[in-house]
Amino acid sequence: MRSDHPAVTVIGLGSMGSALATTLLKRGHGTTVWNRSADKARPLADRGARLAATPEEAIAASPLIIACVLDYEVLHAVLDPVAGSLAGRVLVNLSSGSPEQADEAAAWARSHGADYLDGAIMTTPPGVGSPEMMFLYSGSGAAFEAHRPTLGALGDPLYLGADPGLASLYDAALLGLMWSTMTGWLHGTALVGAEKTPATSFTPVAIRWLTAVSGFLATYAPQVDAGHYPGDDATIDVQLATIDHLLHAAAARGIDNALPELLKSAMERAKAAGHGSDSYASVIEVLKNPAVRT
Amino acid sequence: MRSDHPAVTVIGLGSMGSALATTLLKRGHGTTVWNRSADKARPLADRGARLAATPEEAIAASPLIIACVLDYEVLHAVLDPVAGSLAGRVLVNLSSGSPEQADEAAAWARSHGADYLDGAIMTTPPGVGSPEMMFLYSGSGAAFEAHRPTLGALGDPLYLGADPGLASLYDAALLGLMWSTMTGWLHGTALVGAEKTPATSFTPVAIRWLTAVSGFLATYAPQVDAGHYPGDDATIDVQLATIDHLLHAAAARGIDNALPELLKSAMERAKAAGHGSDSYASVIEVLKNPAVRT
Ligand SMILES: NC(=O)c1ccc[n+]([C@@H]2O[C@H](COP(=O)([O-])OP(=O)(O)OC[C@H]3O[C@@H](n4cnc5c(N)ncnc54)[C@H](OP(=O)(O)O)[C@@H]3O)[C@@H](O)[C@H]2O)c1
Ligand SMILES: NC(=O)c1ccc[n+]([C@@H]2O[C@H](COP(=O)([O-])OP(=O)(O)OC[C@H]3O[C@@H](n4cnc5c(N)ncnc54)[C@H](OP(=O)(O)O)[C@@H]3O)[C@@H](O)[C@H]2O)c1
Repeated sequence: MRSDHPAVTVIGLGSMGSALATTLLKRGHGTTVWNRSADKARPLADRGARLAATPEEAIAASPLIIACVLDYEVLHAVLDPVAGSLAGRVLVNLSSGSPEQADEAAAWARSHGADYLDGAIMTTPPGVGSPEMMFLYSGSGAAFEAHRPTLGALGDPLYLGADPGLASLYDAALLGLMWSTMTGWLHGTALVGAEKTPATSFTPVAIRWLTAVSGFLATYAPQVDAGHYPGDDATIDVQLATIDHLLHAAAARGIDNALPELLKSAMERAKAAGHGSDSYASVIEVLKNPAVRT
Repeated sequence: MRSDHPAVTVIGLGSMGSALATTLLKRGHGTTVWNRSADKARPLADRGARLAATPEEAIAASPLIIACVLDYEVLHAVLDPVAGSLAGRVLVNLSSGSPEQADEAAAWARSHGADYLDGAIMTTPPGVGSPEMMFLYSGSGAAFEAHRPTLGALGDPLYLGADPGLASLYDAALLGLMWSTMTGWLHGTALVGAEKTPATSFTPVAIRWLTAVSGFLATYAPQVDAGHYPGDDATIDVQLATIDHLLHAAAARGIDNALPELLKSAMERAKAAGHGSDSYASVIEVLKNPAVRT
């Protein structure tokens, strides 16, 4: 271990925890690991990790403890019995959960004298260690600053603020965006696939199109903040006319249309609320405001 | 007009047709224009466009006729009475419609001795003229090759194949992806907005995340073509556990959850069909196959 590479403990060696520990070892951090099922620690020991026999021993080994287990129930099942040993250390929890669970965990850690950072990993295990991949953090700003170089070994660390729930809130919002995008892509892939276009032909065009769509999001974000949605580029009315082409083309090819039907109904509700000649960003009004729902 | 910049006619001067004609004029093409409401032609005349008094005069002026009107009904209303004058010319239709309408228009144009290209404009009017923006074409390959430099002035021209309906099919598929992505983004924006995060703070993170999501699409496309969806990176089971955090966080903040509920039900149907430990790409099986629907 080099002195500019502080010791780290990783608790939880599922597919994600193993990727975290492997990356820390590669970057020269003295790394102590613990997992309920000890067999998952063996490949890490081969790469130089120190195996802790108990969670308590794992915590004692390093000033920085990174936990990545299934969920908060597991986090508490593992750490509650040894909470006393966390005093004076930094606990970074990368297990997924709700903002409320993160808030509770922060209070719990503080009550045991530990500094708490909550995090969300915005990549899959193969992406860990890439500086392009985002790791979102919220909670103790002092802990984030003190351990930024170590956290930077895992990916690009972004600090969102002192509210411990923010990373989980962003995580939920970003995963929703991911599932929406992936499902829209799969629907389009099924549509062109019905005419013998392979997914590998359609997808490069779809990915390039997402770059243009990202430009629309950048245009619409200030409209959302202003609550004013000028439809200079493309109006809800024009898009309502166009979505029927999608519905007909997909229905004719036997493809499930639940997703585009939901999107059309969101646009119709925006139009009914007076946004027909506004931009698509005005759809946020019907998502935010239950009174506008029909 | 320079001899390497052939003459072009633009029929339809709505917001998109005006952007097309303006761009052609800027690039040095002798451009003749016609629009039902003549007042929209005036700003283009000021930039050097020749105004045609009738659609027939507009067609006679150029070997290449670009039409961009509201829809195919309007296209036929304008061109049917003067179809005889299309013989020996190339008609490029950039009005939106269904693949079936494009097929019919191609047959109709051929029956009048014209070569037909169908197109889809994958940008808004301000994006016209940018080499980053995609213009999709299908239909006559000879017409595409002959006029590629002129079409290249409008954006990056991509030829999809001889089937005239392909551009409209891709258009529908890509717009579905756009609406899905924009609605997922608006849902996430509403969620973080409930905790006072401005859209302009969340959106740069969302746009960066879409780059990572594009990487997932590139990983999943060959899985779709193979009909085999290994869940090494992230399984449907793991994502089903995670989407509940989104549903709870959004419900607690009064946000409409119809979209994430639909996404969860798609995942549940994939799981019920045996894809619990497969990747998200397996959701295409329940979109393609009505038998799997519940
Ligand atoms: N995989 C991804 O792409 C990804 C991306 C972002 C975030 N995440 C998040 O990272 C966390 C871990 O995910 P993963 O992919 O590593 O999952 P995983 O491979 O299923 O690993 C689960 C981990 O939790 C432990 N665990 C489960 N139940 C336990 C219990 N009752 N007591 C003690 N330990 C228990 C497991 O220990 P055993 O080995 O003993 O079972 C293992 O270490 C999750 O919150 C996930 O949402 C994952
Ligand atoms: N705007 C975009 O972002 C965008 C992007 C991609 C594709 N498109 C497609 O481009 C096409 C045109 O869109 P746009 O935005 O330019 O729409 P627009 O501004 O509403 O213009 C509509 C055009 O159609 C003409 N028109 C309508 N009804 C007519 C009729 N009965 N007879 C003769 N002409 C008639 C209009 O002539 P008047 O001026 O006389 O009304 C005008 O030229 C649409 O198919 C649209 O889907 C648009």
